[in-house]
Amino acid sequence: MGQSRHILVLHGPNLNLLGMREPEIYGTVTLGEIDAELSERAKSQDATVETFQSNHEGALIDRIHAARGKADGILINPAGLTHTSVALADALSAVALPAVEVHLSNLHRRESFRRRSYCAAACRGTISGLGARSYYLGLEALLEILSEKK
Amino acid sequence: MGQSRHILVLHGPNLNLLGMREPEIYGTVTLGEIDAELSERAKSQDATVETFQSNHEGALIDRIHAARGKADGILINPAGLTHTSVALADALSAVALPAVEVHLSNLHRRESFRRRSYCAAACRGTISGLGARSYYLGLEALLEILSEKK
Amino acid sequence: MGQSRHILVLHGPNLNLLGMREPEIYGTVTLGEIDAELSERAKSQDATVETFQSNHEGALIDRIHAARGKADGILINPAGLTHTSVALADALSAVALPAVEVHLSNLHRRESFRRRSYCAAACRGTISGLGARSYYLGLEALLEILSEKK
Amino acid sequence: MGQSRHILVLHGPNLNLLGMREPEIYGTVTLGEIDAELSERAKSQDATVETFQSNHEGALIDRIHAARGKADGILINPAGLTHTSVALADALSAVALPAVEVHLSNLHRRESFRRRSYCAAACRGTISGLGARSYYLGLEALLEILSEKK
Amino acid sequence: MGQSRHILVLHGPNLNLLGMREPEIYGTVTLGEIDAELSERAKSQDATVETFQSNHEGALIDRIHAARGKADGILINPAGLTHTSVALADALSAVALPAVEVHLSNLHRRESFRRRSYCAAACRGTISGLGARSYYLGLEALLEILSEKK
Amino acid sequence: MGQSRHILVLHGPNLNLLGMREPEIYGTVTLGEIDAELSERAKSQDATVETFQSNHEGALIDRIHAARGKADGILINPAGLTHTSVALADALSAVALPAVEVHLSNLHRRESFRRRSYCAAACRGTISGLGARSYYLGLEALLEILSEKK
Amino acid sequence: MGQSRHILVLHGPNLNLLGMREPEIYGTVTLGEIDAELSERAKSQDATVETFQSNHEGALIDRIHAARGKADGILINPAGLTHTSVALADALSAVALPAVEVHLSNLHRRESFRRRSYCAAACRGTISGLGARSYYLGLEALLEILSEKK
Amino acid sequence: MGQSRHILVLHGPNLNLLGMREPEIYGTVTLGEIDAELSERAKSQDATVETFQSNHEGALIDRIHAARGKADGILINPAGLTHTSVALADALSAVALPAVEVHLSNLHRRESFRRRSYCAAACRGTISGLGARSYYLGLEALLEILSEKK
Amino acid sequence: MGQSRHILVLHGPNLNLLGMREPEIYGTVTLGEIDAELSERAKSQDATVETFQSNHEGALIDRIHAARGKADGILINPAGLTHTSVALADALSAVALPAVEVHLSNLHRRESFRRRSYCAAACRGTISGLGARSYYLGLEALLEILSEKK
Amino acid sequence: MGQSRHILVLHGPNLNLLGMREPEIYGTVTLGEIDAELSERAKSQDATVETFQSNHEGALIDRIHAARGKADGILINPAGLTHTSVALADALSAVALPAVEVHLSNLHRRESFRRRSYCAAACRGTISGLGARSYYLGLEALLEILSEKK
Amino acid sequence: MGQSRHILVLHGPNLNLLGMREPEIYGTVTLGEIDAELSERAKSQDATVETFQSNHEGALIDRIHAARGKADGILINPAGLTHTSVALADALSAVALPAVEVHLSNLHRRESFRRRSYCAAACRGTISGLGARSYYLGLEALLEILSEKK
Amino acid sequence: MGQSRHILVLHGPNLNLLGMREPEIYGTVTLGEIDAELSERAKSQDATVETFQSNHEGALIDRIHAARGKADGILINPAGLTHTSVALADALSAVALPAVEVHLSNLHRRESFRRRSYCAAACRGTISGLGARSYYLGLEALLEILSEKK
Repeated sequence: MGQSRHILVLHGPNLNLLGMREPEIYGTVTLGEIDAELSERAKSQDATVETFQSNHEGALIDRIHAARGKADGILINPAGLTHTSVALADALSAVALPAVEVHLSNLHRRESFRRRSYCAAACRGTISGLGARSYYLGLEALLEILSEKK
Repeated sequence: MGQSRHILVLHGPNLNLLGMREPEIYGTVTLGEIDAELSERAKSQDATVETFQSNHEGALIDRIHAARGKADGILINPAGLTHTSVALADALSAVALPAVEVHLSNLHRRESFRRRSYCAAACRGTISGLGARSYYLGLEALLEILSEKK
Repeated sequence: MGQSRHILVLHGPNLNLLGMREPEIYGTVTLGEIDAELSERAKSQDATVETFQSNHEGALIDRIHAARGKADGILINPAGLTHTSVALADALSAVALPAVEVHLSNLHRRESFRRRSYCAAACRGTISGLGARSYYLGLEALLEILSEKK
Repeated sequence: MGQSRHILVLHGPNLNLLGMREPEIYGTVTLGEIDAELSERAKSQDATVETFQSNHEGALIDRIHAARGKADGILINPAGLTHTSVALADALSAVALPAVEVHLSNLHRRESFRRRSYCAAACRGTISGLGARSYYLGLEALLEILSEKK
Repeated sequence: MGQSRHILVLHGPNLNLLGMREPEIYGTVTLGEIDAELSERAKSQDATVETFQSNHEGALIDRIHAARGKADGILINPAGLTHTSVALADALSAVALPAVEVHLSNLHRRESFRRRSYCAAACRGTISGLGARSYYLGLEALLEILSEKK
Repeated sequence: MGQSRHILVLHGPNLNLLGMREPEIYGTVTLGEIDAELSERAKSQDATVETFQSNHEGALIDRIHAARGKADGILINPAGLTHTSVALADALSAVALPAVEVHLSNLHRRESFRRRSYCAAACRGTISGLGARSYYLGLEALLEILSEKK
Repeated sequence: MGQSRHILVLHGPNLNLLGMREPEIYGTVTLGEIDAELSERAKSQDATVETFQSNHEGALIDRIHAARGKADGILINPAGLTHTSVALADALSAVALPAVEVHLSNLHRRESFRRRSYCAAACRGTISGLGARSYYLGLEALLEILSEKK
Repeated sequence: MGQSRHILVLHGPNLNLLGMREPEIYGTVTLGEIDAELSERAKSQDATVETFQSNHEGALIDRIHAARGKADGILINPAGLTHTSVALADALSAVALPAVEVHLSNLHRRESFRRRSYCAAACRGTISGLGARSYYLGLEALLEILSEKK
Repeated sequence: MGQSRHILVLHGPNLNLLGMREPEIYGTVTLGEIDAELSERAKSQDATVETFQSNHEGALIDRIHAARGKADGILINPAGLTHTSVALADALSAVALPAVEVHLSNLHRRESFRRRSYCAAACRGTISGLGARSYYLGLEALLEILSEKK
Repeated sequence: MGQSRHILVLHGPNLNLLGMREPEIYGTVTLGEIDAELSERAKSQDATVETFQSNHEGALIDRIHAARGKADGILINPAGLTHTSVALADALSAVALPAVEVHLSNLHRRESFRRRSYCAAACRGTISGLGARSYYLGLEALLEILSEKK
Repeated sequence: MGQSRHILVLHGPNLNLLGMREPEIYGTVTLGEIDAELSERAKSQDATVETFQSNHEGALIDRIHAARGKADGILINPAGLTHTSVALADALSAVALPAVEVHLSNLHRRESFRRRSYCAAACRGTISGLGARSYYLGLEALLEILSEKK
Repeated sequence: MGQSRHILVLHGPNLNLLGMREPEIYGTVTLGEIDAELSERAKSQDATVETFQSNHEGALIDRIHAARGKADGILINPAGLTHTSVALADALSAVALPAVEVHLSNLHRRESFRRRSYCAAACRGTISGLGARSYYLGLEALLEILSEKK
């Protein structure tokens, strides 16, 4: 077996309240549980994840920059920044790592401003509306993309 | 182990040409290969798939209707109809089966009219931009959703 | 009493599921019941109806064409095609028979895209939001329009 | 037979000139003739109508308010106010009586600003483009809606 | 010399405050002075004017209706109703008398919503931005139009 | 203590039904109760209020004009006219009295057309979404503004 | 009597064909006739006009520049350039002479792109829809404006 | 002389009624006559045409797919589907044959929604407004394009 | 007397410069003075306030999160973030505390982009245009809302 | 054989650089070659062409005017003026000669502002995207239109 | 030192009035002074400038064409044509010389239509809002770009 | 020589990656090299620069605030925040120091959302599309502006 892969998992603003916040939209699973599950799933495929949540656009961008040369791919739920942050999308383009955007809720069933995504064009693909599962499928996609590249 | 699940897989217009058409956008895998892979993956989870491709909006709607009482969920790539067919979206709402929308390409990197999806609001979630993998992850999501409901 | 009149009644996509689909929007009466009632009402006024439902835009257009020289007027619920089909509206204009557009639900209380109607300009009038009654009033209007022309 | 029903019929601005004004758009029947016909039709179904025309938005709203506890339903042709009066639409919502909106002409064949209706969402349904007949069918619909409720 | 002509002069909402209100936009001449000047100018051309100001859309419409068979033309400054009243414009179209729309201020130098005029299409022409002079020129235009028709 | 202040309180269309109309949006307090409370609060600060409700745009404008030289400030809930009446906003600008706009409900949680306010730019400030309290706080603000000016 | 005034009259593209072109829109009077009438009217008020027609935006701008220090006011029918030329409007602003914009036809009854005027904001006022009379009234307005300034 | 060329001619919805439908827009020539003329013109240039009309979007797409390896170019009048079908345009892109879009009427003189064409970007060029001649010129263009490629 | 209430007061970007910045828009009172006044007013009603200003969107969000279980309500002036931050609005929704949005200036008299508020829909109500008074009235509203809930 | 026909061929701005300018968009044929070919083709059908290129909107309009009574039809490539010149389109309408608009490139594959054509509505038809061939087909169409009229 | 460079400096409509026109927007320096300064600055860097002002779009385009093979770069202030001339922008693209667009005033502080620039995409860069300095910096940029290319 | 000037140079998000990120858009020079060059150029004109890069909107705002009383002018490349940050633009307005906005790339050749700049109206001028040179010219402009003020 070859070289292990490392994935940076980024959670945008307010996701730290997951499970405690509007469960009818976001479900009852907590961010800690999602991170644990992602870690376990990565391990089973000889990969590692490092996870980071922040309510600060700048901190998320700093972390994306820091991933250059360290991580092999990025799994990101930009949350509210999806619709408003050109800088975050530019950061993803700048580091040029394979990235997958995930959303817990189905953005097409919410306010119309949630349909615009600056990040989407900077990512390989998007998975939305499947709850915590959006993360797990996103990790799976990312690991497969990396396998092919090797 | 319990009751087996049956998934209807629908491919919209022009997907029959997959692998033969604009490979820089849609990749080189054929629809037959995707269907075979979906079948295999379903089998390994004690599920079955039935696949159907049509260039006819009406035929796709007829098939969705026919799934009532027969299929447990729908995996659909509406292709060009994504952006123009209210009737297809209404059909998904009408049968009220769990559905997941998939797209091979990243719609945010193409013409702006491809960003509008009538179907998305009628589905649980959407997976896009991951090539054939969008289908496989969509099947996985659908089977898990059905597992939870049991 | 004079010449009997013949009305073509067209039901667009998904209306075959009427009574079985989202009853909070569309009510519980079935399409068969509506057709029977229309037939009875026509008969009581020395008229006949022929009804046709299809999920295929093309089949509806074919049927409109076939009505030339056979039917005296058209009663149509274009359903989801109302908002997306220029071809269907063109067909109504092309045959130049008096037509009345009907809708079961009040389109102004639903998604904003349901407020655009290509068909409306090709019809004499529109009746919407009155459930199955929209059809019955539409038939009545059509028969009166035809009476005046004689 | 049971309890008689009473319908308030409201005619918006300029309808007093009906039959005298732009007959190619609005026809030659006068408002008096429409009122008489509505009265007769109501009587034949054990109902009564009271009719009111005004060119004053405020007077129409006052009359809608006055209908609370007196009328069982409202038949309204808001004319030019259809497209510009939020206050009139709010009045209809406020009294919470079943209401049907009618228009003599087909608004989809006229200026584009006539396609917007504030009133439509405050009414059960809309009937348009059928000349004086729009009123008669609207009355019929309203009486049937009231019959069902009893 | 022939038949005398009679002109209805209508002043929309807030024009009663003319000369007392925002003089930097509307000037210092009062409505009474404008009416007196219009009267004098009409007299010198063997014509008469009757003037009416109201803050009530409905009262203005009533007055337009009352002009049928009495006045030969209408000079109207719809003020704030210019931009919001379809009913007033419909009244002008309904009576089918030659009408000229006037504005004291240059609407293109003010808020963008003041650039939309429902009334303009119902009038022969529009004169704006010339202060009280807009009225005087409008009267002149109207009298000439009527002269030609005779 | 100095000169007493007098406030004109204006209630737009349909507010006479307050407490009787859609309580989930507008609450259960009646307009009479609001007026009484405003009167009491004014008295406690050596001020007086006069209140006026009308469903007529023109009557509200007339009343604003009549306030010139009589009232020291205007507290106004334009209701449905907020979004459609340029003439009402012009009246507020014309009399040049300090004015505060109030709304019972949070307009940002309702139909999108309720987000446009012609009146807002003609007022000092706006208070919305706080139920009857919007009025009381508006009065307070107005009295303080007037105190400062003395 | 005092100092004579000089007016530059500018006719935009295609106005040289007046009387020969689409008479149902523009009437049958020729540009020569309009110029002669303007000249006569000016003379009777102790003023002079100089007229210039061009199909070249640049030539019209040159002429406006040349009017600095020579003409006292500008009467302009920008024709098709009304809706498309920022440069022409800038020229009017640059020379800072009183200007009046005129149009033969009622722009509100034509294509929607004819409703936008770049020139209007650079002029004192606009007169439109009154045929050749638009010019004569415009001249009158301009001469009165100049009289007041002296 | 070399290898003969084969052209697929596609007629979209309602074109089967040509000559029988709204002759003031579409002319009096029938589709059969157009097909015969196209055939003759092709023959004279050592080419063949096969023609197909359908009111079904799906049937047109199927036929485009079937042309792969059989036809050398496509001449298409998408009719009402021009403005609404992404799937049809995708089919043209997918088969990657030279295509020319033709329209009988001048779309710029009709409803504004007819100005949007999804197909145009998938074709080499467009010919519109020249009646049946649009087809003949389109065939000529296509044959020349194919000649150059050889 | 019952349980004391605690209010979190949040000041968005640039408000630290209050009194030192564009006094013609924002007035001359400093943020320290506002905080002192709020504190005093709260104390007089048996409540406490804690105030926090930041130019960092993330810091404001962090503070909102920290208020869970500690504060009873939030008074927020989001300043420039009002119009651009979905994440901040999401934070307010997530903690589900009663919140009131305040603005010093009248946003309807400034640039059009200042009319959009993401935060408004996440708050009970909004108070704007009343200078420092907007804060004081907002505090009053919040304390009353909390009183009612007890 | 009858009367010879004369065609004015107009080339808009920058077309003089044809063959020397962006060949990937406009091809390598020069304007001189196109003119020569048009001349030859006309001659073979007993017609004559006169060609004119200008970078001046006004010069093109002058030339269109000069064609009255001299030319029988106009073939025009308005180039960049297509999208911005109302005056040029008005000139085509004014002279009322049959006109055909041509474009070398497919405007639907370029910047979105190139999709608007003021000229199109003033012409019989449009031919675009076929390179120099667009001109030749346009000439052919024009000559046939003229043949029919005789 | 190498080969001298030659720069074409183009001034669009109304710039000939510089220093005499609206000094609060455009400053008091004249065009002659700017040209002299540009000439001097060029000379000090072993370059030459030739300057040309015109109010004619066509003359500016002609001059751009004439620069082919003569000038090494273009410095252009398109003035009012910036926002309306596709033809001018096409000319810049056609000659394919390095170009820099300059504006005296800050277009973001003026009318909204001044924010659209057709020319910008045809130039390397844009310098705006810095008065005459915009030109001097633009020249500097252009000379440096040319130095690098050698 | 007089008083030295001090310039704050601000680099927005992702600019720290300059030279390492998408060189086809942003070039190969690093931010360190730009800062060094700016420093040198400032020194040669008896001025100093202090440079600051941050991916945090708030940190940039803090730094702008801190410049009050310390710096004489601001040179800012807001990067992705240009298009999304009202707060940053407000900060520039608040401190009221002369500011120049610079961009490395030509925003008119990129995604359409990059054409909107909130910052531009808060700055004296903008320089874009000239690579690192945009900074150097911006510094030059700023120093000259400051020289004039002294």
